[in-house]
Amino acid sequence: MTQPIILLTGFEPFEQEPLNPSWEAVRALDGWPCAGASVTARQLPCVFGKALQVLEQLMEELKPALVICVGQAGGRSQMSLERIAINVDDARIADNAGRQPVDQAIYNDGPAAYFSTLPIKGMVKAMRAAGVPAEVSQTAGTFVCNHVFYGLMHQLATHASKARGGFIHIPYIPSQAARHPGQPSLALETLVEGLRIALQSAMTLQQDVAEGGGQLH
Amino acid sequence: MTQPIILLTGFEPFEQEPLNPSWEAVRALDGWPCAGASVTARQLPCVFGKALQVLEQLMEELKPALVICVGQAGGRSQMSLERIAINVDDARIADNAGRQPVDQAIYNDGPAAYFSTLPIKGMVKAMRAAGVPAEVSQTAGTFVCNHVFYGLMHQLATHASKARGGFIHIPYIPSQAARHPGQPSLALETLVEGLRIALQSAMTLQQDVAEGGGQLH
Amino acid sequence: MTQPIILLTGFEPFEQEPLNPSWEAVRALDGWPCAGASVTARQLPCVFGKALQVLEQLMEELKPALVICVGQAGGRSQMSLERIAINVDDARIADNAGRQPVDQAIYNDGPAAYFSTLPIKGMVKAMRAAGVPAEVSQTAGTFVCNHVFYGLMHQLATHASKARGGFIHIPYIPSQAARHPGQPSLALETLVEGLRIALQSAMTLQQDVAEGGGQLH
Amino acid sequence: MTQPIILLTGFEPFEQEPLNPSWEAVRALDGWPCAGASVTARQLPCVFGKALQVLEQLMEELKPALVICVGQAGGRSQMSLERIAINVDDARIADNAGRQPVDQAIYNDGPAAYFSTLPIKGMVKAMRAAGVPAEVSQTAGTFVCNHVFYGLMHQLATHASKARGGFIHIPYIPSQAARHPGQPSLALETLVEGLRIALQSAMTLQQDVAEGGGQLH
Repeated sequence: MTQPIILLTGFEPFEQEPLNPSWEAVRALDGWPCAGASVTARQLPCVFGKALQVLEQLMEELKPALVICVGQAGGRSQMSLERIAINVDDARIADNAGRQPVDQAIYNDGPAAYFSTLPIKGMVKAMRAAGVPAEVSQTAGTFVCNHVFYGLMHQLATHASKARGGFIHIPYIPSQAARHPGQPSLALETLVEGLRIALQSAMTLQQDVAEGGGQLH
Repeated sequence: MTQPIILLTGFEPFEQEPLNPSWEAVRALDGWPCAGASVTARQLPCVFGKALQVLEQLMEELKPALVICVGQAGGRSQMSLERIAINVDDARIADNAGRQPVDQAIYNDGPAAYFSTLPIKGMVKAMRAAGVPAEVSQTAGTFVCNHVFYGLMHQLATHASKARGGFIHIPYIPSQAARHPGQPSLALETLVEGLRIALQSAMTLQQDVAEGGGQLH
Repeated sequence: MTQPIILLTGFEPFEQEPLNPSWEAVRALDGWPCAGASVTARQLPCVFGKALQVLEQLMEELKPALVICVGQAGGRSQMSLERIAINVDDARIADNAGRQPVDQAIYNDGPAAYFSTLPIKGMVKAMRAAGVPAEVSQTAGTFVCNHVFYGLMHQLATHASKARGGFIHIPYIPSQAARHPGQPSLALETLVEGLRIALQSAMTLQQDVAEGGGQLH
Repeated sequence: MTQPIILLTGFEPFEQEPLNPSWEAVRALDGWPCAGASVTARQLPCVFGKALQVLEQLMEELKPALVICVGQAGGRSQMSLERIAINVDDARIADNAGRQPVDQAIYNDGPAAYFSTLPIKGMVKAMRAAGVPAEVSQTAGTFVCNHVFYGLMHQLATHASKARGGFIHIPYIPSQAARHPGQPSLALETLVEGLRIALQSAMTLQQDVAEGGGQLH
């Protein structure tokens, strides 16, 4: 019997950055054995549409039991477990192919939003207990990260997949913050450690814990 | 023929505040004639469930052509036109009846989210042009404000209403910020002026303008 | 016997702004009778050196009993009573004459710093009691505002003047913040009201109140 | 001939923290050979007065060629090279001995402030070049950190010492930020690496570089 696969994706660099910490962090976990499964790390282009095509091919090919997409959130100080993906592209900057959609549905026939099916509260709890700054986030934005998150959940929903899926935003790493004075960062080692705990929790928690993680507004 | 009604709601105070700027601002517009319609301002309790019952009764009674609910977002610096309401209550603090739900659906049979049907980009554009700080916001949080916003949109959707609906978050007023050192605020006069422009835009814009208002994350 | 004069200065606009809220606010108080004195409002150029020459001429001419210089601090949310002026110019942008000094002493023979001689704690207390967001600030920066503040205190010290002197930083007004999305602001009316209370406190408090107003770092 | 000594101090924990990252970082460098000198790392109590007594004894005993004191600045995202120490204690919280002075001079006969004698611009430049987030800071606050920084510079000035001295504020480490959701942090490894570069620059730069590091306000 084959081992279950955890598909872990990161993005290529965008917005003039020399690297994307999401790819640096996930590729460090390629091949990592986690709770009886094995991690396959892949890179996605930072391009509307094409990123989803690549993701869907990977899911077709790998038939993963768990899919977690990871993306850079320059300016955040913690690892953010995203709660919800929304059906809109509204790009403040152009993607890596020069496209900049405004208020366009990702799937015209898709619902307004999908909730993450990861046990995000339990994952945050475990990450904090291990000393990794983490939070639940109520918005993944409206750029390629949200686009991929929504497309992932739409793919899982329309294929009636039992696989869990979700998205994690991560801060800059220090070498990026050194060029963006004032921006917070986390070391690559901290990010990799945080992802390890996140994956383990996602594989082992049958249901999420009932802990507050909301915002007043 | 009767004049169309714009239902404008604010909230009662919560979290030990002596007032709620949303109620102070909306009540200043009660009876205001706007684009051939007339504003009816009402207060909602800051209580899960009960706030929606009051709102639904008001909608039943008034049959408004436009419904805008307004709520306090202490810590924000601008008037925020909310883009999306999500189907979850996750309360960091207790509501005014002492309830503090965690990760509960607002309507078990409701979709994950509803988009505002207000022309939020056009409203922000008009507000900024008039010198009022305004933005599109990608999250209304998970407390009573989002609860009311979601309930409003669910009511409109399930009754196949043609009325437009949406939610606006507003900052503290200066007297509140004076007790919360470091927090931003806007004068009540600025908030009332901003709401006036928002209502006019919502009544007169047939469709929204295509202007960016998204976030990278 | 002549009435004592309060010299209140604001700055001309800088950094592409169409106005400077410090000048808009202080000129609204020109001629205002305050605690037996009378306010004279004047504008300073946003130019290293020249701003101080204008200020010194005004002090020579008016022999004020109290001098408060006011400047724009875009990004702050409260009116800031500055505690200390430091003997350095270190400009992140060019001034209105195109000069951009780096790490230059304002007066080569001056001390490292001067403390404000205003009762800043009492002023903040009175402003907050009146509902105006206010704070003590530990740094006036290193641009023209600090330059003028240091020059003012140096002038008072070297002339053994009994006049009190100090500096107040103020936020953007809403029309500015509407063009700088995310930035906090205070209405001009709030700023003028805050300055009124500040002037009255500065004229009537014989000594400052002992209230905390520090920062951990 | 004896090797020159670099005295590097960190603080004991305060404000209910289980550790102080300043002590964790400096003790990792105890004994480190740096540019022909050797680092001696020592801990200071977080107590007004007593911290300075300990520091002065250490300086008396070790006769260091360079003294850098390091302290925790919870909430900052970068390593902060402090520009200036001011002659005031104004404590928002009690120190570890329960004392909470308000607006008291550190030395009644001391000047208003002392500038750091470290080449802070060059140090920041070198740290950033190595990928460590760093900045010049215009205020060290008014708590025990500023107290120690002022006392250090006063000691050097009144003893006509040729030793250079200054202060570096550092962020939380991740395990602290995990308990303070939303706060930025840097890994201990990043902090230690940043201090290494800072010490080397301070030992080898004969004079500071002329690079902007100021603030508008």
